[in-house]
Amino acid sequence: MDFELRILGSSSATPSANRHHTAQVLTIGNQHHLIDCGEGTQMQLMLYKIKHQRISNIYISHMHGDHYFGLAGLISTMHLQGRQAPLHLFGPPGLAEILTLQLKYSGTNLVYPLIFHELDTNCHKRIFEDKQLSVYTIPMEHRIPCCGFLFKEKVKPRPLLKEKLPPHLSPPQLVRLKWAEDIKDEKGNVLVSYKDVTGEPKRSRSYAYCADSRYKPDIIPIVRQVDMLYHEATFLDDLRDRATYTFHSTALQAAELASQAAAKKLLLGHFSVRYKDLTPLLEEARQVFPNAELAVEGSVFYVEE
Amino acid sequence: MDFELRILGSSSATPSANRHHTAQVLTIGNQHHLIDCGEGTQMQLMLYKIKHQRISNIYISHMHGDHYFGLAGLISTMHLQGRQAPLHLFGPPGLAEILTLQLKYSGTNLVYPLIFHELDTNCHKRIFEDKQLSVYTIPMEHRIPCCGFLFKEKVKPRPLLKEKLPPHLSPPQLVRLKWAEDIKDEKGNVLVSYKDVTGEPKRSRSYAYCADSRYKPDIIPIVRQVDMLYHEATFLDDLRDRATYTFHSTALQAAELASQAAAKKLLLGHFSVRYKDLTPLLEEARQVFPNAELAVEGSVFYVEE
Repeated sequence: MDFELRILGSSSATPSANRHHTAQVLTIGNQHHLIDCGEGTQMQLMLYKIKHQRISNIYISHMHGDHYFGLAGLISTMHLQGRQAPLHLFGPPGLAEILTLQLKYSGTNLVYPLIFHELDTNCHKRIFEDKQLSVYTIPMEHRIPCCGFLFKEKVKPRPLLKEKLPPHLSPPQLVRLKWAEDIKDEKGNVLVSYKDVTGEPKRSRSYAYCADSRYKPDIIPIVRQVDMLYHEATFLDDLRDRATYTFHSTALQAAELASQAAAKKLLLGHFSVRYKDLTPLLEEARQVFPNAELAVEGSVFYVEE
Repeated sequence: MDFELRILGSSSATPSANRHHTAQVLTIGNQHHLIDCGEGTQMQLMLYKIKHQRISNIYISHMHGDHYFGLAGLISTMHLQGRQAPLHLFGPPGLAEILTLQLKYSGTNLVYPLIFHELDTNCHKRIFEDKQLSVYTIPMEHRIPCCGFLFKEKVKPRPLLKEKLPPHLSPPQLVRLKWAEDIKDEKGNVLVSYKDVTGEPKRSRSYAYCADSRYKPDIIPIVRQVDMLYHEATFLDDLRDRATYTFHSTALQAAELASQAAAKKLLLGHFSVRYKDLTPLLEEARQVFPNAELAVEGSVFYVEE
């Protein structure tokens, strides 16, 4: 199954001629999860041929415009294109109020269900789950309420080793073995141990999206050992004071956090318009955390199962 | 003095990969008037190197997103870039409420004055004037309250013919002559006739922006003999019924209106995404009104003095 992240925008708030405001698409299996939705996101989705119909959930980290001003347009376009499937929208207080007002004044009765999920950005909490995936908030420290999002695949079933399976097991017994449960008799004696007849399950992959924030090491337990950690890196570390003052981070701080969390890969984004060339940000991060990459428009990052 | 219209977007509501949502910049002298502000307008302004600082007034025709979803982003960027000059925003009811809410939830106290002017879209009324220009609403007929905008230069001063001027006229007397006033003695006898000592003033130019609307011939007296008439042309005339049903117009209807109004030039825009090639729309209009043009992204139209 796919576990693929596509970057649609890498710019911080002041726009740049060559970069777009923050938006990312995490594709897990057949489903797109849109993370933040800066102005122009619907044009970027068109550019990369990402189908709206497969976007089931949209997550907005905070109410600065560079993270959500593309949302009303995308929601409207989905309406004009006759979407039928429900759309789940996770965001901070204010988002539902603004969108509801925009729909009212445009005289729009959406042809599909738009379901708001208001977030408490201060806590680490599960906000969504389905068969494969759980999504959690990650509290960030920004000028206004802001959270990141942790996407974690659930534990996967263990593969049955057919050559080792005793005959005549029933389908419910096979399911129990797949989910690491032994088959026992009425007295509790183990008849078939799942360890004997199943292999190791495929890895459960994870992605942590750490939105706009000061360096915040208390999130490390939440993002420990994630496969990919996106962290904003608005500035180089020579502007650390400015980063702190504006509630942002430096590339070095992002790398320190990735290192302390033992993340497998670090993605840097949300770059200040002052950096025409992003190489120094990448180099700064790699001094501390070698497996760092620039999360720039169009780049795609996979996690293998 | 310049009188120049730059087109930033030509697409109707459903976005197209190659076209942008509606926005235009009318430059009169040193001042930019931004007319509608679809999503991505600030990127288009950057592309065409149009300076925010020179935008004094923004006019929003109606509250469909393809005409204003770029506004919040532009207003925020002006804030981030330290704008100081007041910005005048003319738009229908709802616009101030939405933007105020967006600013509230983003925790933004704008560093420049944003002055809302709520429009009555149902009447033809002067909404702005300065030394050179008057701007009027043009009531349109759309699904929601909608108006266009008529930009009219004021009558200009008559040039003094120096070789014909008698000596010893005072500066106030010269000003009166420029503004077509004779110089008289105390008994009312004409001492200097302005007709003898001044030439004809330069032309007062005009531009009418007719936003989303059904064919609405009752606006003809308002737009009569304008130098440039922009009219939406969402459809070809074989879809006239669909145009009427969706409160839009066809290229032929736009041309008929331009012809009846004796406009000097017609600009067509707001094209449905179904038309990859816009030539048929232009050809249809030119059958009725030969001096028609496509108002596509990047095109610039001048009016000579």
